[in-house]
Amino acid sequence: MKLTIKKEILQEAINKVSKAISTKNLIPVLSGIKFELKKNKLILTASDNDITIQTTIEGCKEEDFKVEKEGNIIVQGKYISDIVRKLPDKFINIEVIDELKILIYTENSEFNLNGINESEYPTINLEESKKKIDINASTFKDLVNQTAFAASNEETKPVLTGINFNIAGNVLECNSTDSYRLARKIIQLSKESEENYNIVIPSHNIVEFCRIMDEDPDSKVEVHIFNNKVLFKYKNLLFQSRLINGTYPNTANLMPDASYMVITADLNTFYSVIDRASILTSDREKNIVTLETEGDTLILKSSSIEIGRVEEKMKITKNVEDDIKISFSARYMMEALKSFSTDTVEIHYVGEIKPIILKSNEEETLTQLVLPIRTY
Amino acid sequence: MKLTIKKEILQEAINKVSKAISTKNLIPVLSGIKFELKKNKLILTASDNDITIQTTIEGCKEEDFKVEKEGNIIVQGKYISDIVRKLPDKFINIEVIDELKILIYTENSEFNLNGINESEYPTINLEESKKKIDINASTFKDLVNQTAFAASNEETKPVLTGINFNIAGNVLECNSTDSYRLARKIIQLSKESEENYNIVIPSHNIVEFCRIMDEDPDSKVEVHIFNNKVLFKYKNLLFQSRLINGTYPNTANLMPDASYMVITADLNTFYSVIDRASILTSDREKNIVTLETEGDTLILKSSSIEIGRVEEKMKITKNVEDDIKISFSARYMMEALKSFSTDTVEIHYVGEIKPIILKSNEEETLTQLVLPIRTY
Repeated sequence: MKLTIKKEILQEAINKVSKAISTKNLIPVLSGIKFELKKNKLILTASDNDITIQTTIEGCKEEDFKVEKEGNIIVQGKYISDIVRKLPDKFINIEVIDELKILIYTENSEFNLNGINESEYPTINLEESKKKIDINASTFKDLVNQTAFAASNEETKPVLTGINFNIAGNVLECNSTDSYRLARKIIQLSKESEENYNIVIPSHNIVEFCRIMDEDPDSKVEVHIFNNKVLFKYKNLLFQSRLINGTYPNTANLMPDASYMVITADLNTFYSVIDRASILTSDREKNIVTLETEGDTLILKSSSIEIGRVEEKMKITKNVEDDIKISFSARYMMEALKSFSTDTVEIHYVGEIKPIILKSNEEETLTQLVLPIRTY
Repeated sequence: MKLTIKKEILQEAINKVSKAISTKNLIPVLSGIKFELKKNKLILTASDNDITIQTTIEGCKEEDFKVEKEGNIIVQGKYISDIVRKLPDKFINIEVIDELKILIYTENSEFNLNGINESEYPTINLEESKKKIDINASTFKDLVNQTAFAASNEETKPVLTGINFNIAGNVLECNSTDSYRLARKIIQLSKESEENYNIVIPSHNIVEFCRIMDEDPDSKVEVHIFNNKVLFKYKNLLFQSRLINGTYPNTANLMPDASYMVITADLNTFYSVIDRASILTSDREKNIVTLETEGDTLILKSSSIEIGRVEEKMKITKNVEDDIKISFSARYMMEALKSFSTDTVEIHYVGEIKPIILKSNEEETLTQLVLPIRTY
């Protein structure tokens, strides 16, 4: 293997696959990046058994990518990443000598790294499915950002640490819940899916995939679903994740059919009113605050015997004359509010011990649900 | 106590004293900020027994600071800080009611905090000395930034966790060492000191003081030295720190009288050459790299059997024809180099097992010393 490559092209590719480098060192070879150099392309692969990321460098200008000899090698991920990042030169030469020695050199710098034989790298199947589902890239990112936060961090209920993708016909419904709150986003697919799917993708993995996607709203993400894994394809990037086994809870019956009262509030004001009302609460007690209405005034309260109490007011409109009172976790409510990029939000009140529903007529595909907390 | 104050004035003052709020909760009252409201000024004080910070709000525009009733109270530091930061209003009203209840309110927000009686706050003497020493503010900041990093973090030798201030006549010499390296800065005082001093100031404390100083190169810092404490006065800010007991090691004899060789190098190039050479080294082994000369070429090497080896080259000039070889900690050398804001640096070589000295003819008041490491 021998090539000369433009530093920034190599650095970008290494950065992308680096998220999959294993830091656990259980299988030493997984702390490496696999380099596969062909005549006209360089394929980088990294995997930690949970996710696999592969990116292909090809179609570069001739002067940016010169291959002298094809070949494969595994390079320690941490070191190659630091070396390429810190080299000041525009072009970097990489050469495998004596079978397992990797020479990385520029005019004044010469690194001689121990490589690992490619035969030691596990076989990873990154084949695509014939029944792929296409989603617009920015729609995909929104979908993840608006739901992933509601997934659980606790491994005691593994299925709740994932995002549920429910695909039927041309509808994709995403649900995410930690059993105290629920985020739901429904999108229309441009093309009917050949099969129906109901899968659970680890939320950390799909968030990681969104982080390494660049900002290109016109591109698309291809979703290839298999029995126990999902493969996302985005431009020259392949990102594969295991799926979580188990049946996702049926969340359909959590959404109330009708609301007793709909409060409409300015989104940012409502957010900061809760933010301030929660200053005196503690995370340990889920930052409980109480919402009350008094005509067209919404009052948020919280109190603690040791610290003191707070009362915040704001103007709202509501569709019922009665007044209500309900308590909830300020943190959960604020996280749910953050998922809306609208000016106003509708707070649907069903009953004192019924879930609180957040919607917005400016963004009808998104629903957030937060359970109330009894305070008496 | 009752006043109306412009939010940003109060927030800035709270931010300054907040660094001294105790987070250890050994003495609960020390997690509070003492508010002392006089007719025309508000004094805020916080202390964690190690440092005390006091700032005075006075000389404000009439509409920005209205006092209705004088008085004193201790407010929980964490909460008042969050409340003032998160309130969206331009002005904030603060009032003590029922003796120990603090009401903080604006148009739509009302906080009712439990206060602590001022009598419970320890008496802290912040009296100034008659024999103060004046130092230009930006000179003072440089002095600290160029020396503090070399102090020890290990409490086993308490005296090395401080910066040594040695004042005689109109010369202030600062030394800082962890016994592997030494930073020295010498400045001329504008006025002869009435007394000679040789004190050790905890480096964390003096760094903290520099952080809360604003950027005003024309102001001065007054240094008031007492038996067991030092008081810094900067504008409307008082910052008091304990001193470290014990005799600071005599560092004068560490500096060699003459150098065998002086290498002159471009500072940034030398820094990044060491940075890259250290990629393959480990922090645990102090990131050892080896410097060699070959005529007007400087070569930096490091190697590790498991990972590989690296060789970096750069052009230098030197005043002796012979070639040298010496090993040192890349991290210590890089930290020492960072303290220079010059274009070039002089590397003074005295002998293979003698300290390496860094100087620059562009900044003659600063000297850095790094001990070599034997590698055989």
